[in-house]
Amino acid sequence: MTVQPILLKGQWQKAQTLVTFQATDPASGELLPALFPVSNWSDCEAALVAADEAFQVMQQLPCERIAEFLERYAEEIESDREELVRLAHAETALPAATRLERVELPRTTGQLRAAAQCAREGSWRLPTIDTSAGLRSCFQPLGPVCVFGPNNFPFAFGSISGGDFAAALAAGNPVIAKANGCHPATTQRLAEAAERACRTTRMPPGAVQLLYRTRHVDGLRLVADPRIGATAYTGSRAAGLRLKAAADVAGKLIYLELSSINPVILLPGALRERPESIADEFASSCLLGAGQFCTNPGMVLMLESPQSATFIDLVCQRFRAAPLEPLLSKAVWSSLQASVTVLQRAGARVLVGGVPAGGPGFRFANTLFRVEGRTFLEAPERLQTEAFGNASLLVVASDLEQLLAILQRLEGNLTGSVYSDTGGADDADYERIAPLLRQRVGRLLNDKMPTGVAVSPAMNHGGPYPATGHPGFTAVGVPAALRRFAMLACYDQVRPARLPSWLQDPNPSGQTWRWIDGQWSQQDLVTPDVVSDL
Amino acid sequence: MTVQPILLKGQWQKAQTLVTFQATDPASGELLPALFPVSNWSDCEAALVAADEAFQVMQQLPCERIAEFLERYAEEIESDREELVRLAHAETALPAATRLERVELPRTTGQLRAAAQCAREGSWRLPTIDTSAGLRSCFQPLGPVCVFGPNNFPFAFGSISGGDFAAALAAGNPVIAKANGCHPATTQRLAEAAERACRTTRMPPGAVQLLYRTRHVDGLRLVADPRIGATAYTGSRAAGLRLKAAADVAGKLIYLELSSINPVILLPGALRERPESIADEFASSCLLGAGQFCTNPGMVLMLESPQSATFIDLVCQRFRAAPLEPLLSKAVWSSLQASVTVLQRAGARVLVGGVPAGGPGFRFANTLFRVEGRTFLEAPERLQTEAFGNASLLVVASDLEQLLAILQRLEGNLTGSVYSDTGGADDADYERIAPLLRQRVGRLLNDKMPTGVAVSPAMNHGGPYPATGHPGFTAVGVPAALRRFAMLACYDQVRPARLPSWLQDPNPSGQTWRWIDGQWSQQDLVTPDVVSDL
Repeated sequence: MTVQPILLKGQWQKAQTLVTFQATDPASGELLPALFPVSNWSDCEAALVAADEAFQVMQQLPCERIAEFLERYAEEIESDREELVRLAHAETALPAATRLERVELPRTTGQLRAAAQCAREGSWRLPTIDTSAGLRSCFQPLGPVCVFGPNNFPFAFGSISGGDFAAALAAGNPVIAKANGCHPATTQRLAEAAERACRTTRMPPGAVQLLYRTRHVDGLRLVADPRIGATAYTGSRAAGLRLKAAADVAGKLIYLELSSINPVILLPGALRERPESIADEFASSCLLGAGQFCTNPGMVLMLESPQSATFIDLVCQRFRAAPLEPLLSKAVWSSLQASVTVLQRAGARVLVGGVPAGGPGFRFANTLFRVEGRTFLEAPERLQTEAFGNASLLVVASDLEQLLAILQRLEGNLTGSVYSDTGGADDADYERIAPLLRQRVGRLLNDKMPTGVAVSPAMNHGGPYPATGHPGFTAVGVPAALRRFAMLACYDQVRPARLPSWLQDPNPSGQTWRWIDGQWSQQDLVTPDVVSDL
Repeated sequence: MTVQPILLKGQWQKAQTLVTFQATDPASGELLPALFPVSNWSDCEAALVAADEAFQVMQQLPCERIAEFLERYAEEIESDREELVRLAHAETALPAATRLERVELPRTTGQLRAAAQCAREGSWRLPTIDTSAGLRSCFQPLGPVCVFGPNNFPFAFGSISGGDFAAALAAGNPVIAKANGCHPATTQRLAEAAERACRTTRMPPGAVQLLYRTRHVDGLRLVADPRIGATAYTGSRAAGLRLKAAADVAGKLIYLELSSINPVILLPGALRERPESIADEFASSCLLGAGQFCTNPGMVLMLESPQSATFIDLVCQRFRAAPLEPLLSKAVWSSLQASVTVLQRAGARVLVGGVPAGGPGFRFANTLFRVEGRTFLEAPERLQTEAFGNASLLVVASDLEQLLAILQRLEGNLTGSVYSDTGGADDADYERIAPLLRQRVGRLLNDKMPTGVAVSPAMNHGGPYPATGHPGFTAVGVPAALRRFAMLACYDQVRPARLPSWLQDPNPSGQTWRWIDGQWSQQDLVTPDVVSDL
């Protein structure tokens, strides 16, 4: 049977390996026919050489060309929508129309176009000019970026189509995409679209390359390679931390998006005021897409009271009644089962589910746990085990002091939500809770479940370790996401004609924002530099 | 004899240790009288507890208070100028008037005041508001910052007075300062001034604390402690990389400023045009302060030619004629000697010096090496050994291709300079050199030695690894330097009164720049948010 080719230096090529893998249809549990290669180091080396060459070319390209590539790629994706959705549905079992076609695919093309606009317009570079000191600086590309995509968003976080890809390219870097093993055919189809767009817009071969999988040892070597500028990884904590260790030793940047349980705190007034609507919101947020979101509400904290007892009953009803969606893979299914075991052994009691569901494919019963605050404080680490999937843990604290003690034990998370009484009855509690939660999460929400991640300049899809590796960066939302893949480049008394266009006197795009002598400005610079020697 | 106290939680306290050390007068080589403690873990633990408490208070403080503290501290330093300069001169042998009093001390107070202005004004936070998505975000403090200062700037990069200290405080974080062992009395005196300023401006005890030294094992434990937000370290590569490894494993941020040899490329036209002036500039830049600058030009590259032979003669004359200044410590002296040996064994030939100088204190002959490009390419790593002090390596390449090959082997550096003919004769060479150099340095200079580091928003005192740990951050220049010590904090549908002042509708300072719906603005926000659920 034919082994699918990898994309190296603009050509679809045979991988230098005999090891292959197949994806699985999660709805049936059956293997899909196509064989994909597990690359060895020689494929990685070829990708690195080509990416390095492409980077030399890309540094000289006008940013307009990169913008055109990203926009053309978005069009190519739209033209191939039907087949992309078919493949992604077959490999992930995510709903074809309501999720993949109507939500995730438009989000993906929207991200590519927003990144293109950033590349063209250049304000993301924070160009900074100090005329009296003769100094000018801005962010510039770093070098080839390796993107490891997750299993749960085949398009929008995909290694060759998602937010990290778009940001790395828009900042001017080539990308070596490492497909997620759950959806290789979808990734291949996207790479074909990317490759067509590269040819049409005359991007250098090697600007966009694809490997499906590598041996673990070669993945570690790849992120530490001197030719790599940075790596972006979204996935499990264990694998992410192994890559981080390899990158750290080599002094290489790696941006991680790891696990997060996204605590939601329900204050007494909110539960008194609107128990039904909060139960609806929570159940649908937690069970949407079988709960396979980085921002799934995996932990709900409340105070012991008749209202919380009522609320828990309402949630249990909803978890029992909700339909079961298949999980993305056998690995997700096994991992969920393992997490359920850890939580139970640490003292969490099953209220609903807690066991694998029958039927074809990879299904797990909608699962709800309960633990008392006192028990939580006895095993706070184990009880923060992420149960990636359609499961959540309700933590019932005896009083506010215990709730605050629990918050102090929380690890870094992507999000934290607080529901409170709209009339202000919970405001005193909020005042004490918010500072503790704020320091531990990247995004703080009020009266809202965390699942949705709007693509906005004001979004932070990031947070303190171990949710990510650096709390100053976001994976979603331009222009900030681009700066992860950039270095700060200062020009000291550099002759005017030798400056990059972003730092020359005329405004490069007519609308680029630049920090000139202490003010943000879209104007051309007219004051000549004073050549000084400080 | 009395052991000097450490500053913990606003009190000068006895350290919990019996181990002490003394500083040395580098000019005489004799021990200075005061005994300082080498703290053990219990001192570190006490500092962490107090810093954590102070951080809880500081998060609620108006930024105006932090700005007042920084300004008051600058005044305290100025009031105590005479004694500070006396102590620093005794401990470092740096020139009292021309360096410490007239340059470094005003730079230090200037940095504190610039940081105060940032804290007050708030634009450093990059407040970002998306009214249609109901999202607002900005940078916020991280938590206690541990600052390890270097030996070569007792004031301006000092652990309790320098750029890292000012940036960490201005961003809203407490600082635990770890003094440099070369100048503990100076640091103590600065800490006394800081402590007075804290009291006057009612900063919480624990906002500013001082340890002189710790055991190595405790230093590693400190940077990895869960209560630490980040560490800033300036110093030797070996010690910095040990701290980095400890911080990395714990997922803690650490900003490093390590070694840099700051390559300077002299193109043929420049050497033909102005050999005398370049020789003057190079010799004085390289020998200033006995060459003990992070941005000292430690490597000069040129092409083999009669002009370069003449230039080398001119430099040799200047190195022989220049007076000798003492090195900062016996450790610097030993390290310079060790580096000289490494360079010689790797094939560098001594043109001038290369041996310890006689006389009292720690002196080393002004030292100039030469190596041919071919030899360099045989041992590029060893020949990039930093010789911290009054020494530099001249690399003579046979032709431009060899020079380009050498550039491709360069490690990350803080700076890189290119001198070229003012009439344009070197422009073709520049075009080929600049892209290679650009990727390897944080600051690219034209026709200028790198030693001076202007305090400017457009400065980058940073660069690719191993010059620093992350090429996106600068240690000098506000507002950017503050963002190292901050997390990105997003507020999603958070009720207006609960937002930090930076993100509420009215402009917080009347002049804060905020990115509102795609534009930088200093206006109040008048459009109400649309509450949407994306």
